[in-house]
This record gives sequence, C-alpha cells and structure tokens, in this order.
Amino acid sequence: MNAAIVTIGDEILIGQITDTNSGWIARKLTAIGLHVSEMVSISDSTGHITSTLDRLSGRVQVIILTGGLGPTKDDLTKQVLADYFGARLVMDQDILMRIEEFFSKRGRKMIESNRLQAMVPDKCTALRNDHGTAPGMWFRNNNTHVISMPGVPYEMKPMVENEVIPGLKRVLKIPELVHKTIMTQGVPESYLAEMIRDWENNLPECLKLAYLPRPGIVRLRLTATGKCAEEAQKMIQDQIDKLLGIIPEHIYGYDDLLLEKSLGDLLKDKKATVSTAESCTGGNIARLITSIPGSSSYYKGSIIAYSNEVKASFLEVGPKLLEEFGAVSQQVTEAMAIGALGKMKSDYSIATSGIAGPDGGTEEKPVGTVWIAVAGGNNTYSRVFRFGGHRELVIEQSSIMAMGILRKFILEMIP
Amino acid sequence: MNAAIVTIGDEILIGQITDTNSGWIARKLTAIGLHVSEMVSISDSTGHITSTLDRLSGRVQVIILTGGLGPTKDDLTKQVLADYFGARLVMDQDILMRIEEFFSKRGRKMIESNRLQAMVPDKCTALRNDHGTAPGMWFRNNNTHVISMPGVPYEMKPMVENEVIPGLKRVLKIPELVHKTIMTQGVPESYLAEMIRDWENNLPECLKLAYLPRPGIVRLRLTATGKCAEEAQKMIQDQIDKLLGIIPEHIYGYDDLLLEKSLGDLLKDKKATVSTAESCTGGNIARLITSIPGSSSYYKGSIIAYSNEVKASFLEVGPKLLEEFGAVSQQVTEAMAIGALGKMKSDYSIATSGIAGPDGGTEEKPVGTVWIAVAGGNNTYSRVFRFGGHRELVIEQSSIMAMGILRKFILEMIP
Repeated sequence: MNAAIVTIGDEILIGQITDTNSGWIARKLTAIGLHVSEMVSISDSTGHITSTLDRLSGRVQVIILTGGLGPTKDDLTKQVLADYFGARLVMDQDILMRIEEFFSKRGRKMIESNRLQAMVPDKCTALRNDHGTAPGMWFRNNNTHVISMPGVPYEMKPMVENEVIPGLKRVLKIPELVHKTIMTQGVPESYLAEMIRDWENNLPECLKLAYLPRPGIVRLRLTATGKCAEEAQKMIQDQIDKLLGIIPEHIYGYDDLLLEKSLGDLLKDKKATVSTAESCTGGNIARLITSIPGSSSYYKGSIIAYSNEVKASFLEVGPKLLEEFGAVSQQVTEAMAIGALGKMKSDYSIATSGIAGPDGGTEEKPVGTVWIAVAGGNNTYSRVFRFGGHRELVIEQSSIMAMGILRKFILEMIP
Repeated sequence: MNAAIVTIGDEILIGQITDTNSGWIARKLTAIGLHVSEMVSISDSTGHITSTLDRLSGRVQVIILTGGLGPTKDDLTKQVLADYFGARLVMDQDILMRIEEFFSKRGRKMIESNRLQAMVPDKCTALRNDHGTAPGMWFRNNNTHVISMPGVPYEMKPMVENEVIPGLKRVLKIPELVHKTIMTQGVPESYLAEMIRDWENNLPECLKLAYLPRPGIVRLRLTATGKCAEEAQKMIQDQIDKLLGIIPEHIYGYDDLLLEKSLGDLLKDKKATVSTAESCTGGNIARLITSIPGSSSYYKGSIIAYSNEVKASFLEVGPKLLEEFGAVSQQVTEAMAIGALGKMKSDYSIATSGIAGPDGGTEEKPVGTVWIAVAGGNNTYSRVFRFGGHRELVIEQSSIMAMGILRKFILEMIP
C-alpha cells in the first residue's frame, strides 16, 4: 500500500524552512505498514497542486498534503482542492463553533478571515484542529485518499495521531506491523554495534534491526516481518531479554520514551527531588526536565551560573577554586553540584561546566570539553567529556549525558 | 528559470533521516536567481529515478540529484543515469588519480569497489569530490542540465559551491531575484494581516508578500519578480520604510534574524547585562539566550524557581506575597524580576510565572495563563497572557513574548 507526502509552500522551496513534517508523517505511516514512495514539496500554485494530484492519484492509495491552509491570501490549498473535486465551500457549523471557542477561550477577537476558515468543501470530511483554526480535509477519489492538513507542526501532529492514523487503519485494513524500539544512552553508535554484534548476528531472520541515532541517544528498532508476525511480541521480548543481559545499564526504556521522562519517573518512584546548576548547558537541562508535565513534583529549580559571580554567590563556589582550577574543572563542577544540593534542598543534583564554542577553547581545554557532576547524599560523581560538533550539538549532548549519568547514579549503576 | 531538486534514498522516505540537503541547495539556487519549483524524495529504484527524470525534463531547466552514488549495491544512480542518457561507463583517469590520492593520504587500503567509482558515463562532465570518492556528474539533455552529486552533506556542499553554482552562472544567464524577510514579534498572524491590510493591498504588483508564522513570530517575506527586478532593492526598501511607519515596534529585524540574537545585539550595544528568573518557562529563556555564541558577555544567569522555596530563598519573594496572591500573579512575577535584578546584579531582568499545563489550571487561571515581568533601573513592566496550545507551545510562546517585551522595554517602546 503506497503513500505520498506533499508539502505546499514557497518557504520550503527557497530553503527558508526545513521540512520536518514529511519525515515525521513518514515515520507514522511506516509504523502502520504503509510504504511511502515519494515526498514532494511544491509551490502554493493552483497548477502545481493540481498536476501533482493528477500524477499521484493513479500511483498511490494515500496522498497526504500539508500547508497552504492559513487565513491569508497566499494560502490556496482549500480552494484548489474544492475545485479539483468539484465541491462547493459550505459553512461547517461544528467547525465554526470550535473556532469561536478557540478565540473565546483565549480572550481574543475573531475576525472575518478566521470565520471563513470554517468554510469547507462539501465533498470532504472535515478533520478537527484542536490547536488552531484551519480544519483538515479528507477526500476520497476512487481508490485514493487525499488528506489535507495545516503545515504548522503542532496543529498537524495531533490531527495525524487522533484522526488520520486511526482512520487509515480502519479504511485500508492493513495488517499490523510489530515494532519495538529500545532506547539506549551513553554509548555512541559504532561502539554499541561492537558491543552487541553477537546478539545482532544471532537474531532470527524475520526480525529486522535498525540503528536510529540522535544526539546522545541510540534507538534500536526491532521489526517483526513475515513469518515472525504471529509470535512477534514474544520473539521481540525474548531478544530484548537477551540484550538486557549484555548492556543493562545503557537501556533506559522503550518506544521513544524520552530520557527526561524516564529520569522523572525514577525520581517520582523514589520520592526524590532534583535541582540543577548549569553553566555551559545554559538552561537546557532545566528546559528538558520541565518539559515533562508534572515535573514540578520532583524538580526544585536551577541556578544557571553563566558568570563566576553567580557561581560564587548562589552556589557557594569559592573564588579560590575558580582561580586555581578555572570554571571548567572537576573541582568547580563538583562544587556547583554540592552547592545546588544544599542551597535548593534537593535529594540529587546535576552540574555542568564546559566550553560550548565556537570560541573560548584552548589547547588544554578545546571546544567541546564539558565536565558533568552529579551529587546525592554524601556522594558525588563527575566525569569529563569531549563532545564533537557545533555549539548546539555540544549543549544537547552534554544535557543528555548529564541526565543519563544521574539516572545511573540513582540506580547505583556507576561507582 | 526553473530548477528541481531530487533526493534519492529510502532512509528519507521512512523518515529515518531528515533531508536537509534540499533546503541548503535551494538557498544556493535561489540566491543566484533560479526558481526552485519542486523538491522530491524518491527511492533508490531504476523505475522511479527514470520516471522522475522524464517528468521533470520538460518542465525545468536544471535538475539537481543527490544520493545513491555510494559504492554499495543499493546505490543505483550512476548506472541508471548512464542508461538514461545512452552512455557507456569509462574509466576517468583524472578521477582515478584523485581517489588513489584520497586513500593514500588517509593511509587506507583501496579496494575494487573504490576503484570502480572512477568509472563515469562518457556523456557527462565529471565533478571532482574533494571530500570523498564518488565524483559528481553533469549531463546536458537538450535544454535541461542534470547534475548528480553524492548525498553526504560535506561531500555535496563544496561541490555545489566550487563547481555547480559557478557553472550554472556561466551557462545560464538569469536575472537576479531579490527577497527580503521582515521579522515581526508581538502580534498573531491574523491581527497582523488586519493591521497591514492597506499596505498589503497597495503593494506594487510585481512584489509578492508571504506570511511565514512560527510560534510567537510572524515573518513577512517580500519577493521582487518580473518587472520589479531592476529596481528590486529600492522598491523593497520603500515598502519596508512604509511598514516601519505602521508597525515600528513589532519589527525587530530582517532575514531570519533570531529574536534572541536581536536582543543580544541590543544589550551589547547598550553595554548592558540581563538575568532571568523563570518559573513556567523552566529554563527555556536561558537556553535561547545562551544559544547565541558570545552571550556570556551580556548574560549573567538565571534562577529557575520551580518551587516556592527557591523563589523565596534566591529571589527574596516574600512568603506573604506568595500566600496572598499565589505564584502565578503580577505581584510575585514582578518581585521575581526585581529579585533577579538585585541578586544577579544585572541591568535588566526577565521573569515568568504561569501554568504551562496540561494540569494545574483553574477557572480563574486556566492553562496557558502566563505573567511576564521585566525590570531595569527602577522600572518594571508586567503583563498577563493567555497562550493556546500544549505545554511545549505555551513555554515557547511565553519565552519569545518575554524576550520581545524586554526588547521593547529597553527601547522604551512600551510605557
């Protein structure tokens, strides 16, 4: 069963924004067993939208369109689709009510162009948009499903998860594919591959393994195909059990679980709290921890100590330490962790100090040098890393590594 | 003059990697005045590559292909192109020498599959690859230029810069296209459209306007086409001058300037420093500010005060205030801003307190309610917002709004 993903918008074609929608949608479609045979980005133009629909209609069963549904003049998709399918635009009272609610909830004034977003072609099923005003549209043309959604990711994603994926499963009757993703942290991809080589070579033939790296994390995806399908769950679980015998400390969860969520759950389990003292990560660890709903029950706060003054006055990092060892040192980073623990009265703490770049590196401490310390009770643990890549990547890798180390520290998986 | 960008590779179609090559190439082509009319990602299959070439050949003058040139079996592009253009693969001695050099320099052994990479179709011009072993290929088919390059970004990019762009400039004599993007903050898209409607309706016909929203920011892109091209710079500048008369306070910069960079530049100009006291934004403002290289010269640090204890002990927010008004209140948020200013000895400060959700909302203070306060000298300014969307979006919008308010506060654009 083939699908195509079409993104509409000039901003992609001039390279102003990177299309991340298509990859996200592709993962969702692939996960239910659809085969994405093409992704295409085209301009907000009637001719181009129409010719793309003509071309794809014969070749794929599902066409997903995103973009071009805003309230402004340069957004043409709705009218083009209505014309293409010979439909009239009619006011959808249900959608209108939702839009009115959307504005009244936010205490904002609704204007005519917002009201017009409730006009939908009479030959489609409107898809509700819980996070914006443009509804999605689902057309059926012979054997092709044409689904149009807003291009704004936070409006599009819930629509895909709540309406499009369940809907496609229902109408296309596709056999379920069984996946399981194992989340690992702490070992780079090439080392990990080395560590689990024997396990990988001995996998049953119908289980497929994929390495999916992202900064600081390597996801291992097992997919059961063909003959395995029947006992897929059990076969995958057997292999995971074996893997847990090989790299127990590096597996922190499954199925795209975020490390910050895993750490949060662990803290809740232990009825423990955490605080952070960040220098080079500049608030990124705090942001990740607090991105989890309910984190206020275990997160006390953070001191982002960018200046030495702040390190000294809030974290009681003595000026002597700073002078003797420098801010990027084991001594200062451990002192920051201990300072955070005491001053914020938390059970555990994380501290970071390093050189994120692009400037500030020296021969002895090049860009990417980062000290990470954790503390809890009377114990501390610290380690230095040398991360590669640009500023953003150094910060992201440091943040993930710091949370990973605290997780292992709490679980007593590191000395 | 139209161009299309084609990326070849299954890893993109299953969403495993995000295609960032296309956007990068699009920016390069757009900058020399080519119009990218389509980007498409297809699988490593003979049929799909051939049918895509057939389809695009009539419609665009330049087709850029990336990917599928590796030494392994699943990389088909070279053979498919040779067959498509009726060419024979012949050994290119110059390329062979380069590949031999490539291996000897790195002290690595060359194997047969590496040697075969120097075989190129006899109907193309080979493009040298200074960072890998697969050469690029430039075919000319009637009036269409077909250029194939490796998909690895650090191999592809120098090839585009050193060979493709200069080559295209030489063979195609195209008029320059002029874009300018105006960055606005503080007004949602539909309101902005209302505020600038007259200006928009009176734009010269050959200037095209596009609204490009992202959380908290709306970018307005003006593109000069056709008749405007000759005086494009001046025409666009005239329109920007008019717009500056209508919404002066909401324009913070041009051409994708980040708000955090604009704020940083302003602080550097004023030789002023800033600190932050974040509750609901949980470190996201600190992260954004510190994402800018060199921010340590104007950023002092932050107190992420998730718990009331931290608010009280680090920011001197009195327990009485917290008890009487609650953490999410004008009084407490202003006290946090003033506390940050004094305790971190900065010239300006930002504070946030709100309910990011999904839980914690009440009838009086629903999810999305966020107080933002800024302080500097003896002045403070604060305002409450009700942001829509999920937790992540509330945090992002609050962060952008808070930085925007500080910018206007420093510029004395708000009372």
